[in-house]
Amino acid sequence: MTALADAVRAGDRRCLARAITLVESTRADHREEAAALLDELLPATGGATRVGISGAPGAGKSTFIEALGLHLVDAGHEVAVLAVDPSSTRGGGSILGDKTRMEELSRSAHAYIRPSPSKGTLGGVARRTREAMLVCEATGFDVVLVETVGVGQSEVAVAGMVDLFLLLLAPGAGDDLQGVKRGIVELADLVVVNKADGALADLARHTAGDYGNALHLLRPRTDGWSARVLSCSALIGEGIGEVWAAVEEFMELARTSGGLVARRGEQARDWMWSEVSETLLERLRADPRVRADVNGLEAEVVHGRTSPTAAARQLLERLSD
Amino acid sequence: MTALADAVRAGDRRCLARAITLVESTRADHREEAAALLDELLPATGGATRVGISGAPGAGKSTFIEALGLHLVDAGHEVAVLAVDPSSTRGGGSILGDKTRMEELSRSAHAYIRPSPSKGTLGGVARRTREAMLVCEATGFDVVLVETVGVGQSEVAVAGMVDLFLLLLAPGAGDDLQGVKRGIVELADLVVVNKADGALADLARHTAGDYGNALHLLRPRTDGWSARVLSCSALIGEGIGEVWAAVEEFMELARTSGGLVARRGEQARDWMWSEVSETLLERLRADPRVRADVNGLEAEVVHGRTSPTAAARQLLERLSD
Repeated sequence: MTALADAVRAGDRRCLARAITLVESTRADHREEAAALLDELLPATGGATRVGISGAPGAGKSTFIEALGLHLVDAGHEVAVLAVDPSSTRGGGSILGDKTRMEELSRSAHAYIRPSPSKGTLGGVARRTREAMLVCEATGFDVVLVETVGVGQSEVAVAGMVDLFLLLLAPGAGDDLQGVKRGIVELADLVVVNKADGALADLARHTAGDYGNALHLLRPRTDGWSARVLSCSALIGEGIGEVWAAVEEFMELARTSGGLVARRGEQARDWMWSEVSETLLERLRADPRVRADVNGLEAEVVHGRTSPTAAARQLLERLSD
Repeated sequence: MTALADAVRAGDRRCLARAITLVESTRADHREEAAALLDELLPATGGATRVGISGAPGAGKSTFIEALGLHLVDAGHEVAVLAVDPSSTRGGGSILGDKTRMEELSRSAHAYIRPSPSKGTLGGVARRTREAMLVCEATGFDVVLVETVGVGQSEVAVAGMVDLFLLLLAPGAGDDLQGVKRGIVELADLVVVNKADGALADLARHTAGDYGNALHLLRPRTDGWSARVLSCSALIGEGIGEVWAAVEEFMELARTSGGLVARRGEQARDWMWSEVSETLLERLRADPRVRADVNGLEAEVVHGRTSPTAAARQLLERLSD
């Protein structure tokens, strides 16, 4: 582990991939090695700006991330792009699996694109992405972009591991937002209306204005920072610099106010406890005495034939049988 | 238990109070009796319209709930008012403890006001309120209002136990909403701007308009229903009838669309699983092998000296020591 940790800290890309494959493994012995590796790497982590990016299908997320990533690389940053997508079941298992989605960025020596782990619970996928983020930071990446698909609970998980949460929208009225799950708008520190070019330019500005007014009515996620709305065109590369400038302004505020340290501390504590309860639930579900009729009990509860309290007691009693 | 269950079903108020005290007890033997009681009562539950009411301090929640409750009683309803407030530590332990808050309603023979259980985790308090709700339904209450304070996570818990979630606001701009926790606006099926009387009447209408526009940009919590904004004056009793008419319209839609059955089924399943994980976590935290240094480990994690994964593993290993 120490050798691998050293190689990762030295910035060896092949070892980075090996390390991430290790933390993504669900094998018990691998989990143990991963925990040891992470503890070794921990002191070398925390140096990156962590940005979560979510958006409805059709908002142009891949084009935006490629444009933002290339902008950052040109500015001398080392950029890692990770993804959380529990729904993903494809081979590479990812919304990022299709390399053609970010062809140019994926060819850059200063960018690393990692597909979402293909299977597992949201908790599992999120855990592995969190750990992959730490490995990337230890390797020297100073910007980590965590993409999520905007249609599941994964946004909450991603907001729980990043410093700033960015919501990408296509120009248009609220109906276009149906693809974005409820609650996500209120998670956003930064809302970006993409596709502000050609025929959609005016509509994009109009949409940005609407959200500016709406966000004024929502409580900001970060104290001292009121969520901002910008528009850009990832296609022609317009407004990307302004988006990153807003991110840096946010980070500057979070660093000086102490909010960054506080948020990361809370995130780490929540992460520990979700690890604990995820594991306890996994053990319960995997217990043969429980597995036998958990589905039956669930159905009983859903159809109101057994009270949730009683059903929970039955499941728990099985453990002590 | 059967005798108590019969008395509850017969509408005996003294037994109602005894039954709720039982479900609120944390004593192991009481929990067992409570589970048995709930299973007996279960077939007699589900008949009520379940409304969650949240609002920032100063929105006039108690005045609103009293006005709404009296309106419902006049219309021939039997109204139970419960509360979820884990922060509450007062004697009666409740945001509803102070009877003077709803003097007239609390004197009505057709209303029952139950303070929030005074201590315990949010999970614990929410569980007991859910169970108290079932007991009230079995007693024959056809409307259950669940109040929450609008400043904690309890809103999500309440939204998880009611059919419709109502957010009460005072007239004014977004800044007045600082008291309402982020995410709550997006939980609301119905937003009501209170205090639409006297000098504030115009501002209230203006505020309602702003939220109408904002909610248009947020995804509705309930399919087929777009969150609505109304204004009222609980003080002079204006607009209360319109608020309840909207609730009934919502319920009608939810019943005919099958959405009500579906939501309650999901709520019951989620409830079962939160019961299970709450209990597993309680057991872990109570375990002497864990309790000893859980705080120390938590601090290690918060300050980045131990990775959350490793800390979680250590806590779990203690159990198998």
